[in-house]
Amino acid sequence: MASVDSHQHFFEGTEKLLEVWFKSSEGRDLDLRTVQKSDWDKLLELVKCEIISVASSPEMDAYVLSESSMFVTQDRYILKTCGTTTLLYCVEPLLKLVKDKVGFDVVGDIFYSRKNFSRPELQHGVHQNFENEVQELDKIFPNGSAYTLGRINRDCWYLYTLEDEGVTQPDQTFELLMWDMCPEKMKIFTQEMCKDGRDASEKSGIVDIIHGMKMDDFLFEPCGYSMNGLLPDGCYITIHVTPEPHCSYVSFESNVPQETYNDLIEKVLDVFRPGKFLMTIFANKASIARDTHKTLETQENIKGYRRSDHQLCCFKNYTLTYNQYAKSSAKSQRSTTTGQFARPVI
Amino acid sequence: MASVDSHQHFFEGTEKLLEVWFKSSEGRDLDLRTVQKSDWDKLLELVKCEIISVASSPEMDAYVLSESSMFVTQDRYILKTCGTTTLLYCVEPLLKLVKDKVGFDVVGDIFYSRKNFSRPELQHGVHQNFENEVQELDKIFPNGSAYTLGRINRDCWYLYTLEDEGVTQPDQTFELLMWDMCPEKMKIFTQEMCKDGRDASEKSGIVDIIHGMKMDDFLFEPCGYSMNGLLPDGCYITIHVTPEPHCSYVSFESNVPQETYNDLIEKVLDVFRPGKFLMTIFANKASIARDTHKTLETQENIKGYRRSDHQLCCFKNYTLTYNQYAKSSAKSQRSTTTGQFARPVI
Repeated sequence: MASVDSHQHFFEGTEKLLEVWFKSSEGRDLDLRTVQKSDWDKLLELVKCEIISVASSPEMDAYVLSESSMFVTQDRYILKTCGTTTLLYCVEPLLKLVKDKVGFDVVGDIFYSRKNFSRPELQHGVHQNFENEVQELDKIFPNGSAYTLGRINRDCWYLYTLEDEGVTQPDQTFELLMWDMCPEKMKIFTQEMCKDGRDASEKSGIVDIIHGMKMDDFLFEPCGYSMNGLLPDGCYITIHVTPEPHCSYVSFESNVPQETYNDLIEKVLDVFRPGKFLMTIFANKASIARDTHKTLETQENIKGYRRSDHQLCCFKNYTLTYNQYAKSSAKSQRSTTTGQFARPVI
Repeated sequence: MASVDSHQHFFEGTEKLLEVWFKSSEGRDLDLRTVQKSDWDKLLELVKCEIISVASSPEMDAYVLSESSMFVTQDRYILKTCGTTTLLYCVEPLLKLVKDKVGFDVVGDIFYSRKNFSRPELQHGVHQNFENEVQELDKIFPNGSAYTLGRINRDCWYLYTLEDEGVTQPDQTFELLMWDMCPEKMKIFTQEMCKDGRDASEKSGIVDIIHGMKMDDFLFEPCGYSMNGLLPDGCYITIHVTPEPHCSYVSFESNVPQETYNDLIEKVLDVFRPGKFLMTIFANKASIARDTHKTLETQENIKGYRRSDHQLCCFKNYTLTYNQYAKSSAKSQRSTTTGQFARPVI
């Protein structure tokens, strides 16, 4: 997000997202937040990004990075990085760091996920396609499962997770990944329109999405925006904006537990007005969000958007729904069909 | 299936499956069954297989092929071929043949699907991976959508279909693809144990799966089995067996409409006793099978088999469920996890 020429330079807003839950085989009372900042700095060097800012709640340390965000709780580590960062290079070093410096010796579960990149050829080797990423993760985890949701010849979303029971305490993650953004809305996230992160948070309406957040927001030079919001009970939201018109992209992620995310979805859509978006909801059996997929299955429209794909995956302890929507007025992903043979069959 | 040495030669039982629905833009009363056998013969030359036998019902012509089966109704064409056949080479020639010789000028819908191959490197170029196949189909259809169900680093199932409304008359397809078969059961499908197709159909219990079928069954030399069964109202079942122990595989497919397929599933499992199987059920909104996914979502066990994956896809007019099961006693797909780091983190 830093120092990009908004009219010439391509920036890959699409993030790589890693979430790792740790356990102690001896049931020891350990805490990931005892890792020193200098150790996180070294880890992030491998990923090619750095810490810009940190904010804390009793349950969580939330870092704004030069490319997206990092969240550290007692037993869960989240790293979300955009651009051409090399996220997977840090997985083994992370496990080693956490074992050596904290004492956690068991991975309870991992989730590695991302949308398909706009320009995969600009990524470093391991991240150029999901098959490479899976090979890399399979070297570390003997029981990983890899899935592709959505249309592999259009827009899709990749997931790598363990086939174990996983996390049993209530857990849910809600993500909205948006693209083909409204250019007017995107202008807010430039230094032309706003003087700093807080200014952009206010002008855009981000401050009103969820009230009572402790916000750490940052406006990049000349454009681009990141925000970590801390809420009570270990909840967070995080928003990242790539406003350049030729590669516009916004991500919204949260772990707030809700029985239905409809209100939240509508608020986020109002703030950003994407042309298209995909939504994923992960919820385990202990979460109050566990039945959201049943509502979503029948919901073919959301406030001016029409669903193009709905998929459900049942894992051992989690359900995942994947939903893709486009503005109702928008054309289908390629040309709309005439129902005729595409090529003349003479 | 023909002339394979069961102890040395690898045979890819996994089929490529194409289903095309045709329409006339002028609403003309046309019939695919007016195509001459010599024209089908020529088309199948492109796929590298040939017609062995044909059986007919009022609604359908059912062909046993040297590699699997072909079904022709008034407006639907189904081609299922195993081994190293080149199914996709016939798609454009098929559209041309059907337009020139029958007059159908609109593709109502297509479904191209297959399980991942055991040995993809033995396939001809276009079929070596799904990405190639999708590229080929995207050249023909401007509005095709490609999906991967299941685990891309283990067993999975690929689908290419059109994003249109598709077929509106009641339609459903049920498939069980089975592997790691019971060697005792597989012996039945060899010339050692049985003298012909009918003998194998009876000894195996296939004749009892659905009563009242008009059966066209064939036992290959020295082993391998194919059967097309015709039922009233345009219904069919088709079974193909690759019995060699090192590459055993059986497929069961049918379009019989049922509110729940549990009885049928149990009967098929009893006949073949696979180590693992995957099941797909396609049903459109007009089909009585449209709600089967709701039952399947909660059904984590079927008669001695435990579910490893359950996925649901909602298309414009169809729902598709994908389910994978393994014998409850069987190990997980790779080593079961200990919950420990797979590699020592020193």
